[in-house]
Amino acid sequence: MAEERKSKPESLTIWPDAQAMIEKARRDGVKTVWDRMAEQRPACKFCKEGLTCSKCVMGPCRITPGRAKRQRGTCGADADLTVARNFGRFVAAGAAAHSDHGRDLVETLLAVGRGKTRDYALRDPEKLRQVACEAGLDITGKDDATLAVELAQAFIQDFGFGTETLSFLSRVPEKRRAVWERHGVTPRGVDRDVVEMLHRTHMGVDCDPVSICLHAARVALTDGWGGSMIATETSDIIFGTPTPRESLVNLGVLKEDQVNVLVHGHSPIVSEMILAAARDPAMIEKARAVGAAGINVAGLCCTGNEVLMRQGVPMAGNHLMTELAIITGAVDLIVVDYQCIMPSLTAVAACYQTRFVSTSDKARFPGGTHMEFTLENARQKALEVVAMGIEAYTNRQPERVEIPGEPVRFMTGFSNEAILGALGGTPGPLIEAIKAGKVRGAVGIVGCNNPRLKHDHVHTVLCRELIKKDILVLVTGCATVAMGKAGLMVPEAADQAGPGLSEVCRALGVPPVLHVGSCVDNSRIIHLCAVLANALGVDISDLPVAASAPEWYSEKAATIGLYAVASGIMTHLGLPPHITGSDMVTNLALEGLEGVLGAHFVVEPDPVAAANIIDARITAKRQALGLTP
Amino acid sequence: MAEERKSKPESLTIWPDAQAMIEKARRDGVKTVWDRMAEQRPACKFCKEGLTCSKCVMGPCRITPGRAKRQRGTCGADADLTVARNFGRFVAAGAAAHSDHGRDLVETLLAVGRGKTRDYALRDPEKLRQVACEAGLDITGKDDATLAVELAQAFIQDFGFGTETLSFLSRVPEKRRAVWERHGVTPRGVDRDVVEMLHRTHMGVDCDPVSICLHAARVALTDGWGGSMIATETSDIIFGTPTPRESLVNLGVLKEDQVNVLVHGHSPIVSEMILAAARDPAMIEKARAVGAAGINVAGLCCTGNEVLMRQGVPMAGNHLMTELAIITGAVDLIVVDYQCIMPSLTAVAACYQTRFVSTSDKARFPGGTHMEFTLENARQKALEVVAMGIEAYTNRQPERVEIPGEPVRFMTGFSNEAILGALGGTPGPLIEAIKAGKVRGAVGIVGCNNPRLKHDHVHTVLCRELIKKDILVLVTGCATVAMGKAGLMVPEAADQAGPGLSEVCRALGVPPVLHVGSCVDNSRIIHLCAVLANALGVDISDLPVAASAPEWYSEKAATIGLYAVASGIMTHLGLPPHITGSDMVTNLALEGLEGVLGAHFVVEPDPVAAANIIDARITAKRQALGLTP
Repeated sequence: MAEERKSKPESLTIWPDAQAMIEKARRDGVKTVWDRMAEQRPACKFCKEGLTCSKCVMGPCRITPGRAKRQRGTCGADADLTVARNFGRFVAAGAAAHSDHGRDLVETLLAVGRGKTRDYALRDPEKLRQVACEAGLDITGKDDATLAVELAQAFIQDFGFGTETLSFLSRVPEKRRAVWERHGVTPRGVDRDVVEMLHRTHMGVDCDPVSICLHAARVALTDGWGGSMIATETSDIIFGTPTPRESLVNLGVLKEDQVNVLVHGHSPIVSEMILAAARDPAMIEKARAVGAAGINVAGLCCTGNEVLMRQGVPMAGNHLMTELAIITGAVDLIVVDYQCIMPSLTAVAACYQTRFVSTSDKARFPGGTHMEFTLENARQKALEVVAMGIEAYTNRQPERVEIPGEPVRFMTGFSNEAILGALGGTPGPLIEAIKAGKVRGAVGIVGCNNPRLKHDHVHTVLCRELIKKDILVLVTGCATVAMGKAGLMVPEAADQAGPGLSEVCRALGVPPVLHVGSCVDNSRIIHLCAVLANALGVDISDLPVAASAPEWYSEKAATIGLYAVASGIMTHLGLPPHITGSDMVTNLALEGLEGVLGAHFVVEPDPVAAANIIDARITAKRQALGLTP
Repeated sequence: MAEERKSKPESLTIWPDAQAMIEKARRDGVKTVWDRMAEQRPACKFCKEGLTCSKCVMGPCRITPGRAKRQRGTCGADADLTVARNFGRFVAAGAAAHSDHGRDLVETLLAVGRGKTRDYALRDPEKLRQVACEAGLDITGKDDATLAVELAQAFIQDFGFGTETLSFLSRVPEKRRAVWERHGVTPRGVDRDVVEMLHRTHMGVDCDPVSICLHAARVALTDGWGGSMIATETSDIIFGTPTPRESLVNLGVLKEDQVNVLVHGHSPIVSEMILAAARDPAMIEKARAVGAAGINVAGLCCTGNEVLMRQGVPMAGNHLMTELAIITGAVDLIVVDYQCIMPSLTAVAACYQTRFVSTSDKARFPGGTHMEFTLENARQKALEVVAMGIEAYTNRQPERVEIPGEPVRFMTGFSNEAILGALGGTPGPLIEAIKAGKVRGAVGIVGCNNPRLKHDHVHTVLCRELIKKDILVLVTGCATVAMGKAGLMVPEAADQAGPGLSEVCRALGVPPVLHVGSCVDNSRIIHLCAVLANALGVDISDLPVAASAPEWYSEKAATIGLYAVASGIMTHLGLPPHITGSDMVTNLALEGLEGVLGAHFVVEPDPVAAANIIDARITAKRQALGLTP
């Protein structure tokens, strides 16, 4: 540990702002994620390879494949089954998280439609109508409120098991649906398939590792084309469909002379209210009264992405920056909803004047202040929360404040509507650019940070390599902050792209790396792929596209990766899930799924090597379509 | 391991039939659950105490509370949070299993109502009407089919998140509902609450161990008053409400001169069809044609309980007998649905002529034969499966057959309808017997076997101790086989009961230990408690009752225990769940829940000590009601 403590900040992260804050943390005596990881080394080999099982009290068991002893757990499960069961639950939890987030949006939509809340509205009624049509509703003669209720009810059906299909399967190319039908992985109910995975992985239920893995694919698809897509589209209906705009990124967005409020988590439901409260003239007046120049709201992680996409709120950082942002000493209040909020944050906040406020009954944080937000009280609660931030500002200790670096400009807001809008309303021009080889293909770079990898190194190197090869990059989640800080998300970054992509970007005035949203918004990427595939009359797996989660850490990210693969998109991971204890499951992921679902996973920590693998895939797909490589 | 191999069978199980088969397994070179457990010793201390986390790939992590290093995982989770997260998922998986089983029954009911299946019917239309009323449906003028569809749809709503309540909350005493409301644990949707638990336990969501544990209680309640209760009541509607009858138990129910078919798993949907096929004169003729005297269907585990309760099918054994039954060499075919089917069974079956047939898409078994049963093909498939058993009989090797012991008589079929029916239709006489102190109280002994405890020792000693103390025992699941084999489930066992209970049993002609069903049928027990509490105008927690899972092993059992506690019933466990790494969670389970939910867990491996604790509880509850101790 002492040794690990000495890890140079430059070896942990590529960013000067992060390095400076790691140094400050050490000076301030604050532990960070890297310190805890160092203490956790070496990790348990059994757990790392997916070979432990605590799913009953006949155990716990550990499997040692190939050895004389412990080839099977007490129940008789071997390495393949144990790994598959663990992976199945891992994916189910990811789907559950996204989908339960989607559920909250559906409840909001229902409440708006029924007039049960005054704090939320339908900012994009046009999208409401369009999505309602896609969900198979008859919209004629119906007002927005009625339609909101009916759409919410359709989505509620999607979560249940009373229907045979999900609303958004209408978007899926026919060839893809046939693949799913053939292998029994057509998603059914969002909650049902998740619950069935828990059932299957209970002792003595599904004992076939392949069967469990295929159901994992189905569960993932309920996320991508169900829970996540419902979350995205409903968020757009309620909070507005994003349009391109500019903002700023890195810790430099914090302001020494303002009340700094960070929003963190994944949902726009609370953060939009916080933003509105911070923009309230009375609150700004209140802030001025205590000597602040104003109230500065900035984002972290995906809640940050949500308000960035729709409101242009600057972004303070991604997953590994969340502790470091507080360590600046300049954050007066951090308000969270749920997901990816390190349990350590309350302890870090306690080292400064920072108030930590949780807002959802599902996500309480001992050591923080819990302010339960409901659809009825949200606006009022948000005012109270922001007032807490103003009060905390008065306790700020200037000598402990250090805001590193200058913020970097970046563009955001590239919803599919915005992308297609910029192309004149149809995917035609993009398809032409792809056919002409100017845009050779597209890759979604998504997902988290992981302290096991040098922070944002894999993200940024991979991204630079891809755009050089005329491959358009779409980013979501934590990858956004990486590429933004790297200066790749401004139109001038066209300079760093290959000649074809550069030309297209210049013509449209867009960056070679487009921000499409938060992690539930990966649903925008598969939707766009479906639009392209439908326009071409092919399967998604025929497109020259790929996905990558270079620095992923979470169960959600695994689920996203699997729904990408199950949708026909080869997916790169910078490090493997806990499956390496089973050759069968590992081979299925890395090879076998190609034959079943037309795509597979690639695990490659080296970003240059990963870029080459992705490039080869895109070349092959182009050639199969009869295009130039 | 060599040492463990030498464990005397008498130290592993109390039963001669089991001991004989363990000896035979050793002679036949077949590994059993005890051999695998011996290889797994010593277990990982971290896993056993709930202190490992593999829920993201920043880890895996191990927590060592109180030490300098590793007090927190990489994300910052401490021992309490890590244990709570693990326990939350453990309970969620148990609820998922029961509820997904219930879902299959609901789909069957719907198909029957819609005329989509000819293989299933409504054997108890009277119960259909009664349950429909309880679910709040208007039954006037509706035929059975219509009502079946409407009830199925009401249950489908219970699984979803479109409603605010579960159908069967109408059964819950008002005082209990108030407790749930007060602590925010009123169950909502069956699937929703399970999925929310996965969400909450994702990294960075619920970081409050107490909040997670309370949600675990809610999840458990969706099982007890939701999924399980729906499974029980719908099974009764479709397959008939059980009535008292006699049957036989232990390996002696296998017949040397007949085709022996074992049904194993948890659902009646397939096993009822197997039974019908085995009773088909053409199949019996077919069996005779190959020299068998007939076709003998016997049960294992809870599928066994289902067909025992309704059809009087004899019971070959409980969880730890499933391998041993095959080792008799007399089992020609074992047909399974899902849950608690050891993955080892296909390997054991392969050592004999035994055919292993799986029937559900959710539960495939490599090495077995998969015959997918649907609601449309079930009767036909069952005939095919039984024919496979007849064919296997022709390969039986008589020199390898050993059927130990003589079967024991036992009574079954004590549904609540049967119990109340025997009392003249009201709980009045039972309440009078309780008030008079003849029946001092009642205990449900439920759940599994666990090779970490001497097979059926804790079950049987506890049960004998309780009935001696004039405490009526209700049994379900694997406990049934234990008490049945012990001779406690015949009217003559009144001899072994205390004077009061003995008198009541003799007057009614019933045993002091009543079989109320399979493990989903624990819902009958909480329902009966609710009936008693409502009749007395008290909370369930005021009743002189307790629950015990003396030899539990599964996630389902933990969920059952927790819904019992959350329903107000003190619950004894013979060994702890993987929670001992957290003082907070352990104390909450063993003490804290008493203040919140009016009941708590007791962990006590010694059955005599457990009986005394239960007795003291019943005494205290009696006194609080103003009754004699």
